[in-house]
Amino acid sequence: MAKDFVKREENYSEWYNELVVRADLAENSSVRGCMVIKPYGYAIWEKMQHTLDAMFKQTGVQNAYFPLFIPKSFFEKEAEHVEGFAKECAIVTHHRLAKSPDGKGLVPDPEARLEEELIVRPTSETIIWDTYRKWIKSYRDLPILCNQWANVVRWEMRTRMFLRTAEFLWQEGHTAHETSQEAEEETIKMMHVYADFAEKYMAMPVVRGVKTANERFAGAVDTYCIEAMMQDGKALQAGTSHFLGQNFAKAFDVKFLSKDNKLEYVWATSWGVSTRLMGALIMTHSDDNGLVLPPMLAPLQVVLIPIYKTDEEKQMIDELATKIQQELKSKDITVKYDDDNKTKPGWKFNEYEFKGVPVRLTLGARDLKEDKIEVFRRDTCEKLLHQTEGICEYIEQLLKDIQDNLFKKALTLREQKTRKVDTWEEFKTEIEKGGFLLCHWDGTTETELKIKEETKATIRCIPLDNPQEEGKCIYTGKPSRQRVIFARNY
Amino acid sequence: MAKDFVKREENYSEWYNELVVRADLAENSSVRGCMVIKPYGYAIWEKMQHTLDAMFKQTGVQNAYFPLFIPKSFFEKEAEHVEGFAKECAIVTHHRLAKSPDGKGLVPDPEARLEEELIVRPTSETIIWDTYRKWIKSYRDLPILCNQWANVVRWEMRTRMFLRTAEFLWQEGHTAHETSQEAEEETIKMMHVYADFAEKYMAMPVVRGVKTANERFAGAVDTYCIEAMMQDGKALQAGTSHFLGQNFAKAFDVKFLSKDNKLEYVWATSWGVSTRLMGALIMTHSDDNGLVLPPMLAPLQVVLIPIYKTDEEKQMIDELATKIQQELKSKDITVKYDDDNKTKPGWKFNEYEFKGVPVRLTLGARDLKEDKIEVFRRDTCEKLLHQTEGICEYIEQLLKDIQDNLFKKALTLREQKTRKVDTWEEFKTEIEKGGFLLCHWDGTTETELKIKEETKATIRCIPLDNPQEEGKCIYTGKPSRQRVIFARNY
Repeated sequence: MAKDFVKREENYSEWYNELVVRADLAENSSVRGCMVIKPYGYAIWEKMQHTLDAMFKQTGVQNAYFPLFIPKSFFEKEAEHVEGFAKECAIVTHHRLAKSPDGKGLVPDPEARLEEELIVRPTSETIIWDTYRKWIKSYRDLPILCNQWANVVRWEMRTRMFLRTAEFLWQEGHTAHETSQEAEEETIKMMHVYADFAEKYMAMPVVRGVKTANERFAGAVDTYCIEAMMQDGKALQAGTSHFLGQNFAKAFDVKFLSKDNKLEYVWATSWGVSTRLMGALIMTHSDDNGLVLPPMLAPLQVVLIPIYKTDEEKQMIDELATKIQQELKSKDITVKYDDDNKTKPGWKFNEYEFKGVPVRLTLGARDLKEDKIEVFRRDTCEKLLHQTEGICEYIEQLLKDIQDNLFKKALTLREQKTRKVDTWEEFKTEIEKGGFLLCHWDGTTETELKIKEETKATIRCIPLDNPQEEGKCIYTGKPSRQRVIFARNY
Repeated sequence: MAKDFVKREENYSEWYNELVVRADLAENSSVRGCMVIKPYGYAIWEKMQHTLDAMFKQTGVQNAYFPLFIPKSFFEKEAEHVEGFAKECAIVTHHRLAKSPDGKGLVPDPEARLEEELIVRPTSETIIWDTYRKWIKSYRDLPILCNQWANVVRWEMRTRMFLRTAEFLWQEGHTAHETSQEAEEETIKMMHVYADFAEKYMAMPVVRGVKTANERFAGAVDTYCIEAMMQDGKALQAGTSHFLGQNFAKAFDVKFLSKDNKLEYVWATSWGVSTRLMGALIMTHSDDNGLVLPPMLAPLQVVLIPIYKTDEEKQMIDELATKIQQELKSKDITVKYDDDNKTKPGWKFNEYEFKGVPVRLTLGARDLKEDKIEVFRRDTCEKLLHQTEGICEYIEQLLKDIQDNLFKKALTLREQKTRKVDTWEEFKTEIEKGGFLLCHWDGTTETELKIKEETKATIRCIPLDNPQEEGKCIYTGKPSRQRVIFARNY
């Protein structure tokens, strides 16, 4: 049991912040709103990256890299985009430091003021479509399917590690197509890639849906998304995929000669997930004993800890540990034998438990005399004794079981906390309890904003393949043909 | 043969610039000094990254991520470092854009001026050592071996793609140690990792050496480096590894409780390679027909091109191509069958040749009737006919031969262009011919700077394990005990 560690029930928000730091995932830096991602946290992010990268490439996407800076004027070209992104941003105005006239320190050199300010990219549609203009002449040049792994900056006023930071890491895919249909298919395809990743690797169930006009990406025609529910019942937008229509092609004059020999504007999509997924991962599975990781994303899947008194016992355990390690490695399972004698077994138990290592084997001299090994699984915190014989096959299966169990547990929670609400009075009470509320809505931004103002709840999405049913808007009573998901969100 | 492509002899610099663009590696962006790395160029960079990353991890290094921005005051803490890095840099002064008072466009909001300016990192020693202060309490916390893959910005006035750009991609390793000796060993170890990578994967011979005081990293006690020679005889610094002593620990007050229970400053190293390696790779091997890639870094190693007249022939070739592809893939060789009928074989030959694909197989209906396949190797541009039987084993070996041959060719060129020079008159003539000049030097920065002023030649490095011999400085005639490498450089 982790000492002095706040419980989720007491203060969920503090629990999260403390967990991030104590599990060595990240910490705040000296730069306001920017975090340091520590090696253990970064190792999880790398696993996410590698998996997603392979999934993208499987669909034909290639990686590329576009500039960090975007000329200010580029934002002015797409009217909605500028409203959404060019507000709170980091603005580079000078390119040299000079000694201060008073001799104390350095100041931006007034002689080195940029003619046009540069914005540190909050997202890269503008600079990329400025580039695509040079790449696209004819339908033969299409589609273009590019992705970049990059850092972006949005000057957030209130920040929380992984969930909302001024600088964050992400990937942004930007594709260009001949037809509206092809672009929309790409948009939806990438949403499914994200959903599959979330469910299979993160063990995090998600709702696939489309955003309302009000929650849409600035400059998009449609925004598809995956929405997850955290343990406190709040929603977290885990990934978005945007159908951009011809908006950016028009803003940056990107045309192609079609098969019919006509000049037409190119159709676009963009899609991204970020280090925010780390926050989602943490809040979906972790508990009052610390981090819980799904085996498929755990940097370390199995840890072996020896308990012994004599050198003879140690030697026997060493031999067994070597054998187990070899066998697990041959099954592509990452394993560490921690026989460091500077710390005691009890301390190690707490440490690996807090860091969410899925399986711990205790190689105890006493148990081994009976040919048994103690197995601890982090998801349920259950312990059992298993025969030494066949232990590796058992662990291989156990890791799969843990992965499945985490998904099912999260899904059960989401199902429990998802319910239909049909009256405004009920809505106001229920929203306080958290979770997803399935409600009728009259389809207007006006109503959506009023509901948000009164309850802080937003429409997370209109689920895809939503059942159609007649109903009345919970707020205005106007007719509606489907329920949408309302929730408070991160 | 590539049409309208400038030859190296005519204009080496133009040859390089044009090659980068025509081989689809990179292009200039609309942001001054910043390039776009195109998918084909980025695929090569990714191969470099993956290989280096595995080599680093093999030595115990872990990845992490530190902020993009560095508070201005951080640069003022290390006296030499500020001189070297805080001059030409991108300075963020505001965090919001507002509508211009004249209603035309956007301006930095005067209300949103930052209290302290932020510098876009030109290198991260300062922010990382500010962080390490929180991580290090005792010798038990050491060593720390961290690396980050990141973008950095140095406001270069004259830029060239990959070689010198305002923004570039790199990795920077930052390690912290208990003792001076351990830190220096780490510095040298990483230099060797770079050298091994350059020679084994890039097929680029390098000299391992140490920089003179004048060429040292700003803030370092010693800078180790790997120096390569390009085909035009100019030197290119391909990687550096710095022993930083206690300079940054003192600047950021990073102390640890030693085993003897004393508070001591921590010892540091930093080391990096960047997308500059792409420039080195291009200039080491490429020729007047375009890019030449060593097989170990080629995104595509083998291309198959069909030549046929009838559908029957095409079908026969398809079957063979499928078989060859399967067999090559099982040998971990990347292969593509380009049977796109929108372009002619001749166009494809040029295209893949220009892009440096190491091996091309032409599956010609006529040759196949005699059970033969035409094999073209990009490094020597030689063609031969090989029996269909055993073709995959032949290719597997051929790729190794090409890798070896490229290294040997580059090494031979370097040896030819490296010579001893003993008089100042001779030096002035010889330096015009390019190459490395091995000369005696009196060991002073003063002399080094005068030589640079008069000839534009710099001391690239003092080679490790340099033979010791008595001699006289070519410039001052003062006594010297070893030769150093002079060259003009990129």
